[in-house]
Amino acid sequence: MDLDLSVGVGDLTARLVDTPSVSGDEATLADAIESVLGSLSHLTAHRDGNAIVARTELGRPQRVVLAGHIDTVPIADNVPSAVRDGVLYGCGSADMKAGVAVQLKLAACVAEPVMDVTYVFYDCEEIVSERNGLGRLSRQRPDWLAGDFAILLEPTGGVVEGGCQGTMRAQIAVRGERAHSARSWLGRNAIHEAGDVLEVLRGYQPRQPEVDALAYREGLNAVGITGGVAGNVIPDECVVAVNFRFAPDMSADEAADHLRDVFGRWDVTIVDAAGGARPGLNHPAAASFVAAVGGTPRAKLGWTDVARFDALGIPAINFGPGDPMQAHTRGEHVPIIDIEACEAKMTAWLSG
Amino acid sequence: MDLDLSVGVGDLTARLVDTPSVSGDEATLADAIESVLGSLSHLTAHRDGNAIVARTELGRPQRVVLAGHIDTVPIADNVPSAVRDGVLYGCGSADMKAGVAVQLKLAACVAEPVMDVTYVFYDCEEIVSERNGLGRLSRQRPDWLAGDFAILLEPTGGVVEGGCQGTMRAQIAVRGERAHSARSWLGRNAIHEAGDVLEVLRGYQPRQPEVDALAYREGLNAVGITGGVAGNVIPDECVVAVNFRFAPDMSADEAADHLRDVFGRWDVTIVDAAGGARPGLNHPAAASFVAAVGGTPRAKLGWTDVARFDALGIPAINFGPGDPMQAHTRGEHVPIIDIEACEAKMTAWLSG
Repeated sequence: MDLDLSVGVGDLTARLVDTPSVSGDEATLADAIESVLGSLSHLTAHRDGNAIVARTELGRPQRVVLAGHIDTVPIADNVPSAVRDGVLYGCGSADMKAGVAVQLKLAACVAEPVMDVTYVFYDCEEIVSERNGLGRLSRQRPDWLAGDFAILLEPTGGVVEGGCQGTMRAQIAVRGERAHSARSWLGRNAIHEAGDVLEVLRGYQPRQPEVDALAYREGLNAVGITGGVAGNVIPDECVVAVNFRFAPDMSADEAADHLRDVFGRWDVTIVDAAGGARPGLNHPAAASFVAAVGGTPRAKLGWTDVARFDALGIPAINFGPGDPMQAHTRGEHVPIIDIEACEAKMTAWLSG
Repeated sequence: MDLDLSVGVGDLTARLVDTPSVSGDEATLADAIESVLGSLSHLTAHRDGNAIVARTELGRPQRVVLAGHIDTVPIADNVPSAVRDGVLYGCGSADMKAGVAVQLKLAACVAEPVMDVTYVFYDCEEIVSERNGLGRLSRQRPDWLAGDFAILLEPTGGVVEGGCQGTMRAQIAVRGERAHSARSWLGRNAIHEAGDVLEVLRGYQPRQPEVDALAYREGLNAVGITGGVAGNVIPDECVVAVNFRFAPDMSADEAADHLRDVFGRWDVTIVDAAGGARPGLNHPAAASFVAAVGGTPRAKLGWTDVARFDALGIPAINFGPGDPMQAHTRGEHVPIIDIEACEAKMTAWLSG
């Protein structure tokens, strides 16, 4: 498969959506990106697994990192893409193939940026934190990620979004006692008792704190449930998988303590955790970018890899085309004009 | 693997427990049963899948069918078997390898019964009705099952149990709306809403009707639950699998209507159904057997294949060693003296 970077950024986004890349299955798209970037003489490209990093080497005093993940959540009858009334529909259109298309256009078209630029395309953002491609690069190839300032092109509706909320997955295990289902009163049904876990979730009142002048909004939700031994057995275990999104004024350790407190009646296992990032807009590089692209910054609700850059000591913000509210929905879409606007603003900023 | 039918019926039961035969995986045990019965000159043995049918052909005016399933529910840290204080512990010990051991002992030791005898050993009783080995024989080999009266050696504590309750499996599907879990308020969480299904189950008041002078007791329980798309997605579907056990005064059609009524707010799919059987103790053959083995008949709560014999027009009752309350429990067990008592009563009855 070949990518043609001379087409418009909307057409390029459609081409990316039509190349499925569900987490763990990004090789076809990664091959295409590696191939097309490797053909550009003003870039040096490297690959690690299904992540590709391409850099200009112009000796500029500052280096900016533009990063995006190439994977998507599972397809939900929303591939191939479709365009209606100037809006592109399809799995990953907003989260975040539109941003990846902008990265690719900038890489191809801005051969002599005023700052050196590192373009990072990575895999497995939509699944367990351990497999995250940017995390892997930060452990194994931190030199590839070096820079003074990073921008993640996750969808922000073209507005600068500061920081991000943390995310934690945990399993709540409810125990019961097996019995033959024809004599259910001799057992204790773990699935029935899991109704209490669901009641806790439904009654949970999430915080909406303000952190460094930006307003965050937390959430605690079941994202999975499994239980059952056989069709004629009262089950002795039911496990509810929950996802907790917490504001950046709370650490991952504090979040774990909070979950153990909320679900104190049951066994709680923390599956994975990624702390948030404070807004960080007081950093000079962030402030200059905000001044260049305009608008009023707001809080980032979804966890993004700004937290990974933050951990590496690189200030980072979120800025990309598409409405973040569309991410992971069946009807996911992005207006093509928004992708073009993002491309134009960033081209102007990089061209000086 | 060889079965030695000269050992005592308790040792034989232990040997059967130590030969795992979880539903769908009965070939090893079926091979052993086929081999040992095929070696007995007073029997004619046939095999169909993992079911074995062996018959005496003595030209007696009456024929009795003795039937038992050789499969078990999944093992739960309860194999191999163990004997403590004269009690045999292990998966399937009560349900129903003790009964199968009695069948095998009778087949080997009562070479000239006063009635012709058909011994039926079959597979896949513990899973979906469609795969039931006795059901398969009744459709494909009804001539193998012909007889005047049938006894199922399911555990009844050595008491004659009349009839059986029906069983129905259904799936209750709860729909929601997907969203990114960082912005959960934009979606509708199907797992959270499934809490309402669990509330219905927990609040359900089962009937305890009397049918033909025997007392039944119904039950409606979740036996499985699944939901979840990915760790960061508000799920748009959660499916609760329920098992309804209904008294024999209710038909399978009436049971389905009842479930659709109870779960009227959601999509209800009937997965499988097997109607019950009325007690049937007024049949002369049943009455004579009851008189021979003694005791006061009671209602059978678990569904058993008496319903299949009933559908073939063959009166059938349940009579076997072991406490039915033990079936499908981790601590499943059977007193060896009970297996021996069952063997002795049935040997005496068949010997005339």
